[in-house]
Amino acid sequence: MTQATAMLDTYPLDLGRVDREVLAECIDACFDCAQACTACADACLSEDMVAELVKCIRTNLDCADICATTGRVLSRHTGYDANTTRTMLAACIQACRSCGEECAAHAEMHEHCRVCAEACRRCEQACQNLMAALG
Amino acid sequence: MTQATAMLDTYPLDLGRVDREVLAECIDACFDCAQACTACADACLSEDMVAELVKCIRTNLDCADICATTGRVLSRHTGYDANTTRTMLAACIQACRSCGEECAAHAEMHEHCRVCAEACRRCEQACQNLMAALG
Amino acid sequence: MTQATAMLDTYPLDLGRVDREVLAECIDACFDCAQACTACADACLSEDMVAELVKCIRTNLDCADICATTGRVLSRHTGYDANTTRTMLAACIQACRSCGEECAAHAEMHEHCRVCAEACRRCEQACQNLMAALG
Amino acid sequence: MTQATAMLDTYPLDLGRVDREVLAECIDACFDCAQACTACADACLSEDMVAELVKCIRTNLDCADICATTGRVLSRHTGYDANTTRTMLAACIQACRSCGEECAAHAEMHEHCRVCAEACRRCEQACQNLMAALG
Repeated sequence: MTQATAMLDTYPLDLGRVDREVLAECIDACFDCAQACTACADACLSEDMVAELVKCIRTNLDCADICATTGRVLSRHTGYDANTTRTMLAACIQACRSCGEECAAHAEMHEHCRVCAEACRRCEQACQNLMAALG
Repeated sequence: MTQATAMLDTYPLDLGRVDREVLAECIDACFDCAQACTACADACLSEDMVAELVKCIRTNLDCADICATTGRVLSRHTGYDANTTRTMLAACIQACRSCGEECAAHAEMHEHCRVCAEACRRCEQACQNLMAALG
Repeated sequence: MTQATAMLDTYPLDLGRVDREVLAECIDACFDCAQACTACADACLSEDMVAELVKCIRTNLDCADICATTGRVLSRHTGYDANTTRTMLAACIQACRSCGEECAAHAEMHEHCRVCAEACRRCEQACQNLMAALG
Repeated sequence: MTQATAMLDTYPLDLGRVDREVLAECIDACFDCAQACTACADACLSEDMVAELVKCIRTNLDCADICATTGRVLSRHTGYDANTTRTMLAACIQACRSCGEECAAHAEMHEHCRVCAEACRRCEQACQNLMAALG
């Protein structure tokens, strides 16, 4: 059981009509993607060809920050504000798409970009699933 | 001169057609709002009537995280991605609106909510100005 | 395989003499604890007796921020600075201890505090193990 | 009046024996340094000689995260925990020292490193002043 699932199971009030599994998967994907992007930016900095990876590093840094914040917003259920959740999910979907595409372009040459691109795509998909589940 | 202006003036490349003053004002407003919301959530926790302020605290926490991330994204200019910037600005505008309205509802009773509501409105406006300036 | 392990395995340079498993466990524990503390603060806000949980909420918020930052610092290996790593680990150990004790005091009454206290203790231990492994 | 001062003035309870001005200055310095380090990392990424600046970028990223978290911890006064505050201040002093020295080494060549080094030194000093004021 992941940390997000364990915590969701202890929330004292009704979570509303949201699909608990879809929500937990999205929270986990956000935290995982934040870790992957932070580590990928750092790994890029260690490559000899760092000068060719500056856009990748920048996109990683944005994506790490945006996923971390999205994971936090989604970890809160008290005083739920649908508008904030939706716009933040939209920002996260966009950041993951940009970073996933950028990393995918280097995936054959850099293993860290390959693994990070997967984390971005998983997070983008999880955010889209949650957006759909929110109706 | 604010920190954001001082750093913008040292950026080694062309910043593009963005209005430098509008950008600096937005970065400063994001960092200020993140501070105000963090402090307001904490001040609410010290009020005798904390039970009536739980929605305010939650909205403050979201707004603090979202403003902090927006301020970071806007502080980066290398490998600029217009789509990520725009969706993040949209999330920040929404979070500031929600938090500004919530805090304004307690502004007469709690001075920290009054000051925080002002920071939220200034940040919402600064984000809208930047969104407009980006064309 | 966790996200941190997957990313560590792709780092292009030598990681030095650090025990890779101890490092990965610590990164994972930091991200997990950041999630647990964020969710526990929110769950506390939904309790009828929120007024008695304000210290718990505050400690949760500090611990969430400190664990998130520690997880990021530990996810970077390029240009390693032992002094920054050590002082940040010391802050994380302290924050996890304070939060773990505070949550443990409510563990019998609030399931979210029980699960969060476990995450804090696991993170505190993982940070101490890494501190010892760094020599 | 800075944002931190404005919010400190609205805190509903007694702040204890801490010097309010020293505290406000430290909070402002932390937020400013977080902005400066985020922007300096990005500016370094835009330099032709980025390969020679990788240690500077990494140190900037750590310092930005650590200052942001310190600024948040110091913005909270409810349920004050002296041990967490002190260890976090120690981590911030170390991160600012490391980053200030690294940036200072490039200050003559890169204006962003010069401005960032100043922000780091101001933050290091403000943290030391607060540490001393806490007794």
